[in-house]
Amino acid sequence: MTEHSLWRFSRAFHRAINERQPEDLEPLIDEEVDWAIHGPVDMFPFLGARRGKAAVLEVIREIAENLRVHRFDRESIMLGVDQAASMMRYSLSVLDANRAVSLRLAHFAQFRDAVRSTCRGSRRRHQSSFRA
Amino acid sequence: MTEHSLWRFSRAFHRAINERQPEDLEPLIDEEVDWAIHGPVDMFPFLGARRGKAAVLEVIREIAENLRVHRFDRESIMLGVDQAASMMRYSLSVLDANRAVSLRLAHFAQFRDAVRSTCRGSRRRHQSSFRA
Repeated sequence: MTEHSLWRFSRAFHRAINERQPEDLEPLIDEEVDWAIHGPVDMFPFLGARRGKAAVLEVIREIAENLRVHRFDRESIMLGVDQAASMMRYSLSVLDANRAVSLRLAHFAQFRDAVRSTCRGSRRRHQSSFRA
Repeated sequence: MTEHSLWRFSRAFHRAINERQPEDLEPLIDEEVDWAIHGPVDMFPFLGARRGKAAVLEVIREIAENLRVHRFDRESIMLGVDQAASMMRYSLSVLDANRAVSLRLAHFAQFRDAVRSTCRGSRRRHQSSFRA
């Protein structure tokens, strides 16, 4: 049984944020990805909609510069053949304000070529919404 | 092909809110439901966690007294045999403030006895998170 694409994405995403190592994440993001993190854009300019891999990697870089993940719990999860949806609870630090933040984030992901994605891991669509 | 439990729940939920007709919704909520709408409880006291059908019906009543749904779009959706997850965008009015609100709500639902639920429609778990 192959691993669901979500787990590989999740490990790579959190490593890219906390260790500023986006190398594992890069091959998992589709060139034409639709990406959106809905949240207070005035507070965090890296929120909002993006299109394409380069723009998303820039978002990841900005998140890594601004936030550190201390803990996350998946409170609800659904896995489909090429989809995943999770309700997550995060404990974060905002680095330059030295401030702890606790928030929920709902994550919806669409994977392309789900079987191959355990090897190649391309992904097509990603949408999240969070509130502190 | 039977209809997924989510659609019946969604119709009954919105009818309960907008027409103050909870009759169709009542049989769809499990006696032991775990219910949570994560959001600004200080602004809307009917948000937060509840346990059991009576408490949830009271929440629905309070929502119906305070909000009116003008429009909703499902931006992402996942349907499983006995689960559903959606990212939704709502246009609402807050009735006593006569104020329009636009918000996203991520909805995760767990249905019990999914096949029967097209007839009986009991449901076990429900979690939502929204931000304006």
